Amino acid sequence: MRIIDFRLRPPFGSYLDTIMYGNIERTAASAKKKGMEVSRSARDRSVDQLILEMDEAGIIHGVAPGRTGGVFGSMSNDDLTQLLAKYPGKFVGLAGIDPVNRKSAIKEIDRAMRIGLKGVVLEPGLSHVPMHIDDAKVYPLYAHCEDKKIPVLLMAGGNAGPDCSYSSPEHIDRVARDFPELVLISGHGNWPWVSQIIHVCYRRPNIYLSPDTYMFGMPGAQEYVDAVNGFLADRFLFGSAYPFVSLKSAVDRFLQLGVKEEFLDRVLYANAARILDIKS
Amino acid sequence: MRIIDFRLRPPFGSYLDTIMYGNIERTAASAKKKGMEVSRSARDRSVDQLILEMDEAGIIHGVAPGRTGGVFGSMSNDDLTQLLAKYPGKFVGLAGIDPVNRKSAIKEIDRAMRIGLKGVVLEPGLSHVPMHIDDAKVYPLYAHCEDKKIPVLLMAGGNAGPDCSYSSPEHIDRVARDFPELVLISGHGNWPWVSQIIHVCYRRPNIYLSPDTYMFGMPGAQEYVDAVNGFLADRFLFGSAYPFVSLKSAVDRFLQLGVKEEFLDRVLYANAARILDIKS
Amino acid sequence: MRIIDFRLRPPFGSYLDTIMYGNIERTAASAKKKGMEVSRSARDRSVDQLILEMDEAGIIHGVAPGRTGGVFGSMSNDDLTQLLAKYPGKFVGLAGIDPVNRKSAIKEIDRAMRIGLKGVVLEPGLSHVPMHIDDAKVYPLYAHCEDKKIPVLLMAGGNAGPDCSYSSPEHIDRVARDFPELVLISGHGNWPWVSQIIHVCYRRPNIYLSPDTYMFGMPGAQEYVDAVNGFLADRFLFGSAYPFVSLKSAVDRFLQLGVKEEFLDRVLYANAARILDIKS
Repeated sequence: MRIIDFRLRPPFGSYLDTIMYGNIERTAASAKKKGMEVSRSARDRSVDQLILEMDEAGIIHGVAPGRTGGVFGSMSNDDLTQLLAKYPGKFVGLAGIDPVNRKSAIKEIDRAMRIGLKGVVLEPGLSHVPMHIDDAKVYPLYAHCEDKKIPVLLMAGGNAGPDCSYSSPEHIDRVARDFPELVLISGHGNWPWVSQIIHVCYRRPNIYLSPDTYMFGMPGAQEYVDAVNGFLADRFLFGSAYPFVSLKSAVDRFLQLGVKEEFLDRVLYANAARILDIKS
Repeated sequence: MRIIDFRLRPPFGSYLDTIMYGNIERTAASAKKKGMEVSRSARDRSVDQLILEMDEAGIIHGVAPGRTGGVFGSMSNDDLTQLLAKYPGKFVGLAGIDPVNRKSAIKEIDRAMRIGLKGVVLEPGLSHVPMHIDDAKVYPLYAHCEDKKIPVLLMAGGNAGPDCSYSSPEHIDRVARDFPELVLISGHGNWPWVSQIIHVCYRRPNIYLSPDTYMFGMPGAQEYVDAVNGFLADRFLFGSAYPFVSLKSAVDRFLQLGVKEEFLDRVLYANAARILDIKS
Repeated sequence: MRIIDFRLRPPFGSYLDTIMYGNIERTAASAKKKGMEVSRSARDRSVDQLILEMDEAGIIHGVAPGRTGGVFGSMSNDDLTQLLAKYPGKFVGLAGIDPVNRKSAIKEIDRAMRIGLKGVVLEPGLSHVPMHIDDAKVYPLYAHCEDKKIPVLLMAGGNAGPDCSYSSPEHIDRVARDFPELVLISGHGNWPWVSQIIHVCYRRPNIYLSPDTYMFGMPGAQEYVDAVNGFLADRFLFGSAYPFVSLKSAVDRFLQLGVKEEFLDRVLYANAARILDIKS
């Protein structure tokens, strides 16, 4: 079994200044609510220990998303490249991009690709000027990424903005429609609009779902699994949301969800490898 | 067992120019995704063969909807009357009406009723000027149909417009509220907003649901069935969405969904017969 | 077992003029749809009989909501205080407030608190000028109640307004966000947007859910129960919606839903007691 973890934020660089590491007891309490634990590496803030835990859990690569100074703190793209340089081959970096100013955003996207990042993270609802995913002001960025074949991870589920309408599926639906060649990953899988995003995915072949932590004990998990076992096997991604849970517990729980054996490698590895252009 | 199939498009007239017949392999692939097949009559484009398959499946009448030149092709009302004339007693025609111009729309509704069609199909979200179901511009058409007691089939679920908000249930809810004597059939049953449309049906006695193909292997099917077994038995309709699946497989799958024996005749026949004024 | 019933409208005062008592056969038919019955006290319009039924069902207090002249009739705050005076210790009154005029609304809130009511009921979608829950015109009332620590029961599910968008969860989400110290009870639990309101509750610790009648045989009940057994045990309330069903049948059905033993007292009693400042 080989795994790419599509949401893994190591104890490194500016991640350490965000609340998930800054208040590890809060993170542990959140894990406990789900009947899970945070791991030793998260408590000890040790990337070396994390890499041991990745090996143990069968995780070959961890996808580390950048973040620009919104409500949940930030992780700089330069920190990400340092992470990649220090632990070669273990991590993939996605550039956090502030979507508010299109000119500086596009400059930073191009710079990030030059320094080795493999995609872009946009969180329009969490920016200092909250915007829906389909806000016209973000469209020049989507156009740029479509033209340059850069995959875009959107914060599109859970607490994706000031209120729950920011995770509602019509927004990503419109972007996928208007940029049919653009690869879009729905971070948090547009949870809790599960039936609706499954419909949107049925219609839009360029959307991938990464519900990560919302697969564990929240309503709708079974619908995601049924969709994978139906038509969605080529467009589903595994994510642990580490450090919110330990890698081993995330993989174990995921394997118990009932994804058909024949689809596991796609969901755990091959889909992510294709998006990120990782050769096996 | 007697059945009226509320969504059945025979291989006849301009239906043959639409993509479902134009690319039968695409249609077959869609059926296969659901573990089903297209039938011989669809591959052979034979209405005579279709009528044999209807008899085999217990389908007495097939309801054939017209469609005006939107994104999915068209089926003219005159072709429908030719179908009715050529195969007397087998089909019921619903007039496809372009809702954009109210005056020509109302003229065509009246003409269609005169030439033997039994209701109207409106697909405001799929027209050349996409409109929500509750767009004020469509209201004169609803008023006319309410006054003339003409049932209206609305494309209100699945790919009902440019994005998934077009199938959201508040739109049909408002129309049902504002025209309480108008019989409305929700084509595709406002899927994937299943809990929500069940609520709307609980409140609005003039809405009927025809989720057809979305009963087969998509999330929410069980909720529809539970609602039928609860309070919705008098307002649910069977539809196969032929040629997308064979009639026999649609009926077989439907019978396995768990609708209570005592409600089957209403759902398979009596509700549709009442709406369409068919004497048994 | 001790129970506070968060939605119980005794046969008293202006309640008797509303349709639920005015047309008891209609109420009985609604109960029957759910496989339940109305009780003798409702048919006989006897509060004394009701109190016997409360004792039998283990219900210590019934929370009686006021209502101002909207679509479902009204119950005056003065009638509520008479009810409290006549049957001391049995009922808790929540003041029905017309939200349209902020000045008279705030005056009436203050008066109602002085005459012994324990909270406020707002039904913005059902008022003579239908407003969404997060309509800016209601914000001064929320501010006042937050400052005075008055809990607010919002009609936020089911038929909460002219169409189903009035029960959509983004509206209560925004109010809970903008008034984080305000205790909000979602009457009817934002049904049928069950997954979505569970998400909103996960994010907003000041929302309590009281789905009452929608726990009985409607889609989504199991999701509510799973959420209670997960993270929502401290923010869920039992309500019978009497006279729509008998108290005994409501309690019996509720106990069969699968709420974990360890959470029952919170859901049936302790949460409501905390909100209403009832000392046990």
